[in-house]
Amino acid sequence: MRIYRYPTKNTWPELVQRPVLEQKEISALIEGIFDEVKTNGDKALIEFNLKFDQAKTDTVTVTETEIKNAENLISEDLKQAIQEAKENISKFHTSQKPEIQKIETTKGVVCWRENRAVEKVGIYIPGGTAPLFSTVLMLAVPANLAGCQEIILCTPPDKEGNINPAILYAAKICGVTKIFKTGGAQAIAAMTLGTESVPKVYKIFGPGNQFVVAAKEYAQRYGVAIDMPAGPSEVLVIADELSIPEFCAADLLSQAEHGGDSQVIFLTTDLKVFNETISAIGLQVKDLPRNELANKSLENSSFILMDSIEEAVEFSNLYAPEHLILAVDNFDKYIPMVQNAGSVFLGNYSCESAGDYASGTNHTLPTNAYARNYSGVSLDSFVKKITFQYLSKEGLQNLGKTIEIMAEAEGLLAHKNAVSIRLKLQP
Amino acid sequence: MRIYRYPTKNTWPELVQRPVLEQKEISALIEGIFDEVKTNGDKALIEFNLKFDQAKTDTVTVTETEIKNAENLISEDLKQAIQEAKENISKFHTSQKPEIQKIETTKGVVCWRENRAVEKVGIYIPGGTAPLFSTVLMLAVPANLAGCQEIILCTPPDKEGNINPAILYAAKICGVTKIFKTGGAQAIAAMTLGTESVPKVYKIFGPGNQFVVAAKEYAQRYGVAIDMPAGPSEVLVIADELSIPEFCAADLLSQAEHGGDSQVIFLTTDLKVFNETISAIGLQVKDLPRNELANKSLENSSFILMDSIEEAVEFSNLYAPEHLILAVDNFDKYIPMVQNAGSVFLGNYSCESAGDYASGTNHTLPTNAYARNYSGVSLDSFVKKITFQYLSKEGLQNLGKTIEIMAEAEGLLAHKNAVSIRLKLQP
Repeated sequence: MRIYRYPTKNTWPELVQRPVLEQKEISALIEGIFDEVKTNGDKALIEFNLKFDQAKTDTVTVTETEIKNAENLISEDLKQAIQEAKENISKFHTSQKPEIQKIETTKGVVCWRENRAVEKVGIYIPGGTAPLFSTVLMLAVPANLAGCQEIILCTPPDKEGNINPAILYAAKICGVTKIFKTGGAQAIAAMTLGTESVPKVYKIFGPGNQFVVAAKEYAQRYGVAIDMPAGPSEVLVIADELSIPEFCAADLLSQAEHGGDSQVIFLTTDLKVFNETISAIGLQVKDLPRNELANKSLENSSFILMDSIEEAVEFSNLYAPEHLILAVDNFDKYIPMVQNAGSVFLGNYSCESAGDYASGTNHTLPTNAYARNYSGVSLDSFVKKITFQYLSKEGLQNLGKTIEIMAEAEGLLAHKNAVSIRLKLQP
Repeated sequence: MRIYRYPTKNTWPELVQRPVLEQKEISALIEGIFDEVKTNGDKALIEFNLKFDQAKTDTVTVTETEIKNAENLISEDLKQAIQEAKENISKFHTSQKPEIQKIETTKGVVCWRENRAVEKVGIYIPGGTAPLFSTVLMLAVPANLAGCQEIILCTPPDKEGNINPAILYAAKICGVTKIFKTGGAQAIAAMTLGTESVPKVYKIFGPGNQFVVAAKEYAQRYGVAIDMPAGPSEVLVIADELSIPEFCAADLLSQAEHGGDSQVIFLTTDLKVFNETISAIGLQVKDLPRNELANKSLENSSFILMDSIEEAVEFSNLYAPEHLILAVDNFDKYIPMVQNAGSVFLGNYSCESAGDYASGTNHTLPTNAYARNYSGVSLDSFVKKITFQYLSKEGLQNLGKTIEIMAEAEGLLAHKNAVSIRLKLQP
């Protein structure tokens, strides 16, 4: 835990530095995996399941029966919770569908945009300790709303060759078209190149370890798009004298438990809240099953006393956090100042886990300062916005001269002629 | 010119192949240029000007005087044309500003998105034969509308160390904040790393040769975002029996003149239009100053007779052209079938050059089949869409149980506790 009291602005650039991640040179490994998947298809995926996930699998395709059975393996409570989250995510992402707006820029010249779904998308869901069915919701719900025709999901099997039933259930109710038992870089390779079973997709979404991240980066060489660059998860909490230390502590810990490399930053103007939040963390962390990870993450984290909330927001903009919690009283005042953040949580009752699971916003967000130049996943991530234009004869008469002059000045005479010949012939 | 008559669908995948681009191994060169710019800053840029552009420059910053003088060096006609294009581009891109829509997903849970400009953006404008001031408009107008604080522009100087006045004029009237005389990979390096004069930016836009493209790709390792992957320009024209062969020919040529690697595809259901378009190309190409480039491009281009317009659109979706001209009579019928295209031009009077210059749509579009998974540049390219959420006490009471159940099922107990502690204390 690093503690700073009223740091001067010239020290901020140092304070907003992320811990440098150990970058292993794994490109040769990734290339090898892609080659193997390209050459041997499904067979390679089955072998990698055994090699990397110690899972014996005869086929990579999850059967209808497996999906059906999953429904019986999870509690009614969880099913209902997943349904409610799905509804909220649907509501919020549906609101992101734009109306078509036709704009007449010059008389007779009409321009507009229409959304078209990315036809084939792939979702990667990591295995490991936590079965991230919430990420299935966050990616499959907007894919389905966008109208993607093929929505495939890859996730590694457990040692018995099975997929967590909550993942299967969420995938089913959200319109995932096919599910495959394959994880890591090989899953990304399969969605990029296609195999006998796994269809090739145009865009790949989802979190993963360093191998998955490297494979997604590599996949772009094959023309595949990806959701965004990746990094460890982060939260920055801004508190004033009316913030509740126990809540701040709980929010900071809910980020810290993600992993030892998670980033947690706490800014406040109030010394009492500052000290009590730090104490509350000490109390709460003990009871957490993942307290080892949380403690490791807290070691790298910063607790900073600031002169004013304005200054705290300014610091936050420089840091560009994935999650920003404005746990302050008159948060409305500070919203226009927020420039760089993935998702913002307002007031004392908007905990980050609401957005992680069920409020309706997407939890796939830019980390590692990418909130400066990337948005989180939204309906937009699953569509292309195609521009259309119609010029009537009158429209071209009105605009033609302008186009001719500009084309000629750029030395592109065929561009000019496409106008001139129309103005000349005018049938 | 490749001619196909009613090709069967199984041959289409071959017909939509782009010519394979020669990929030179230039990554070592790019890395060297980045290192040089990192170490020597402006001095490196000045040396590269001499080395690569044979231009003697004492400084890389374009002065106010140079910008002011540019205004006197271009004709009133061109100024007026640039102004009119700017107005149309402004109108269309302004229409892309969304209204804030607050959605109550659960009672007491309100979610919305707000746009925030990418604070610092860089625009690259190539040098060479054509001074692409139109691209200045296409990038600086939306950057300015989005509210980007720093909009810088880099472009290589000519042998006298000057920048084309139309580029300077367009930059000035569109709100570019600083202009620098530097081109190629070194310009991209300067905008990525910053030098004494050139500010570091968060996102880089603009076309360029293979060195620029490779440098933009490399820049992403430093956390910079880019507009989109690049490839040669393309048009696909679909014509029926009412299309006008001279217009089709002119449109195909206006794409072909871009460069020898430009792609031109013509699909029609009508044999007469097919033959007459090919003849018209032969007649029109002779008079073009850039006919050598156009002829080279035509060599690789395809002219295909199709059974129906529906089939032609299906073929186009498979090809995913940058520009699609639906030069057919009842184009409205076919709009919903268009799935993959950068920008679509409708009817006999909507020539591609209208969109290239002045109708209002953006001409920075996905090529090389990226229209399957990327949109063209729009206002969205210059903003991040930040999600906000506010949960009242009642909101968390309504949604809390759902979050707790899901967090527990994912094994993330600190996430659960952020809810539980609030529901317990409820101040």
